[in-house]
Amino acid sequence: MNYEFPITKTTNPKQKPDPKGLRFGTEFTDHMFVMDYNPEDGWNNGRIVPYGPIELDPAAVVLHYGQEMFEGLKAYKTPEGRVQLFRPYMNAQRTNNTNDRLCIPTIDEELFVAAIKALVKLDQDWIPEGEGTALYIRPFIFADEPFLGVRRSTTYKFMIILSPVGPYFESGLAPTKMYVEDVYVRAVKGGTGEAKCGGNYGASLKAQEIAHEKGYEQILWLDGIEKKYIEEIGAANAFFVIGDEVVTSELNGSILPGITRNSIIALCKKKGIKVSERKISIDELEEAYRAGQLKEMFASGTAAIVSPVGELLYKGERMIINDNQIGPVAQEMYDTIYGIQTGKIEDFMDWTVAVE
Amino acid sequence: MNYEFPITKTTNPKQKPDPKGLRFGTEFTDHMFVMDYNPEDGWNNGRIVPYGPIELDPAAVVLHYGQEMFEGLKAYKTPEGRVQLFRPYMNAQRTNNTNDRLCIPTIDEELFVAAIKALVKLDQDWIPEGEGTALYIRPFIFADEPFLGVRRSTTYKFMIILSPVGPYFESGLAPTKMYVEDVYVRAVKGGTGEAKCGGNYGASLKAQEIAHEKGYEQILWLDGIEKKYIEEIGAANAFFVIGDEVVTSELNGSILPGITRNSIIALCKKKGIKVSERKISIDELEEAYRAGQLKEMFASGTAAIVSPVGELLYKGERMIINDNQIGPVAQEMYDTIYGIQTGKIEDFMDWTVAVE
Ligand SMILES: Cc1ncc(COP(=O)(O)O)c(C=O)c1O
Ligand SMILES: Cc1ncc(COP(=O)(O)O)c(C=O)c1O
Repeated sequence: MNYEFPITKTTNPKQKPDPKGLRFGTEFTDHMFVMDYNPEDGWNNGRIVPYGPIELDPAAVVLHYGQEMFEGLKAYKTPEGRVQLFRPYMNAQRTNNTNDRLCIPTIDEELFVAAIKALVKLDQDWIPEGEGTALYIRPFIFADEPFLGVRRSTTYKFMIILSPVGPYFESGLAPTKMYVEDVYVRAVKGGTGEAKCGGNYGASLKAQEIAHEKGYEQILWLDGIEKKYIEEIGAANAFFVIGDEVVTSELNGSILPGITRNSIIALCKKKGIKVSERKISIDELEEAYRAGQLKEMFASGTAAIVSPVGELLYKGERMIINDNQIGPVAQEMYDTIYGIQTGKIEDFMDWTVAVE
Repeated sequence: MNYEFPITKTTNPKQKPDPKGLRFGTEFTDHMFVMDYNPEDGWNNGRIVPYGPIELDPAAVVLHYGQEMFEGLKAYKTPEGRVQLFRPYMNAQRTNNTNDRLCIPTIDEELFVAAIKALVKLDQDWIPEGEGTALYIRPFIFADEPFLGVRRSTTYKFMIILSPVGPYFESGLAPTKMYVEDVYVRAVKGGTGEAKCGGNYGASLKAQEIAHEKGYEQILWLDGIEKKYIEEIGAANAFFVIGDEVVTSELNGSILPGITRNSIIALCKKKGIKVSERKISIDELEEAYRAGQLKEMFASGTAAIVSPVGELLYKGERMIINDNQIGPVAQEMYDTIYGIQTGKIEDFMDWTVAVE
């Protein structure tokens, strides 16, 4: 199926930001994609319009009951000027898994990707080209029926906005400090942990602020039942190199199935690096650390791709990992994925999707 | 402190709905209260304006990360025409507890109540007077800074909207059927269960739909760790009469501290009815049921006040409670609380607050 969307161009193009000072998610491009849902027409009226405020009834379900979801992926420009996306069908699939959990109507995957392509194509001059930069793509859906009873909304909006971004952490690839949270809980099996819904993030702010106050950038979440097994990081999955094994927590129903996580596992397999998805207890990490076997730790996610962790704090015990330096596995994963994304390395995994 | 808010009156008053056909949360009055927050001025610019759509940047934090909360209470008109609120300071306190959990700036309790009073006073002709009706008051707060990084928003809106409502359940005080959920989880200690934030409700829709498909109106949630202890109901707390004891789950960190719950406990104490807050396992309920000791079950919440439960389904086992009839405790609690709220019974608990 071929999707085409009417375009209303802005008459008032914004000035593009200085690519050097780019921060994450503060500036937006000239246009946005909008599509409506109602029970009669399903998803309809997909269109591209100038970026600008939306109107919402104050009783709209999203403002009261958090029936909302989002995705995140990136567009890059290759040295030859080709524009490409990284694994957008994975985001489309995850969208529909999230939608199912949140009682939001699913979206045809081709339509999802076509909408992204159309918008990125129009605003492609906004794709920054410096090291660590990209055009961040934020598809999101929210329930907009004005109704205060607690049940699924009958109407929705699907939107896409674009933001030129620099490295997620101001420190770039410098290792971050991570706080192992043992009071607050992110998610539990039967909850919404494996869905990319707003409520998960609002709920995480408090623990994150406490960690910040203690001087830690990020949180490492433990499972909500025994507070014993590693789950994931604020907005990233967690990887460890223990001895010669690359390990990440298995998808147990409360962890977000990261696309970067999936890519790292696939790359390790392709490169013959031993990798496993399994339960990892915080005790195992401590023991490995004491035995000198905790070689590396890193976060994986669309925002930073790979972000090394130099220090872990658990119940007052500080573990300094790899001398607070980025390790070889993290570096190789970052170089390979970012290389493929930006077209500087040949896409031997068939992951990129060209725009146009 | 004396709060006054500028009022912009509607030039286009709506027609009031037929008090007979009133449903919950579908129609709204002529005006709404709006107040802004920014770090320099704190909460400021409280104002009453005509009810109507709001403008939101598509990158507003609330649409992505669910940083939002709400409250619910009611206004009534007494036979003498006096307008009164039921325990609004309890809602103000709970607002601030929720805000603290969601990293939303707290609001002065007097300001919170003054805003409600001012709006209800202006739209008091909308208070319906039939049996089981009331003016439902919905204060809510959402984060509106346009920023995609995951951290607390710097700006917010506090709003109040009003909706004339009929009985929450179309069946009125007729007993409902309840499904004991043993797959999905509402909340877990360390999460947001005791906060009134949007994410809790979006997350609950799926289980609710499954229960509906099976012919059950409501869900009884179990604890997220052992799936063994009673937590609460979709949007209400759970009460049981076991033998001669009225029991409700203790506030354990994952249950919403309901104001109706608090009122029922206080009333029982006042009236010399044995009441306790403690852990209640589903096994205890089954045993009490088999021994003929599970005399009553009811839900407590602002929407329905008291709503008797006639049937409980747990893992395929149906328990029919009190012959599917409302029991004496539920009836007495409903009559007393609704009587106090509507001024038909003297307010011997000092719970009502007059508007003006
Ligand atoms: C909670 C959480 N875990 C993990 C990830 C990583 O997922 P992905 O690699 O698809 O970006 C994200 C999002 O970026 C996230 O929000
Ligand atoms: C999850 C939940 N539990 C309990 C209640 C009951 O609280 P209240 O009696 O204050 O209305 C509510 C809200 O009404 C609720 O949403």
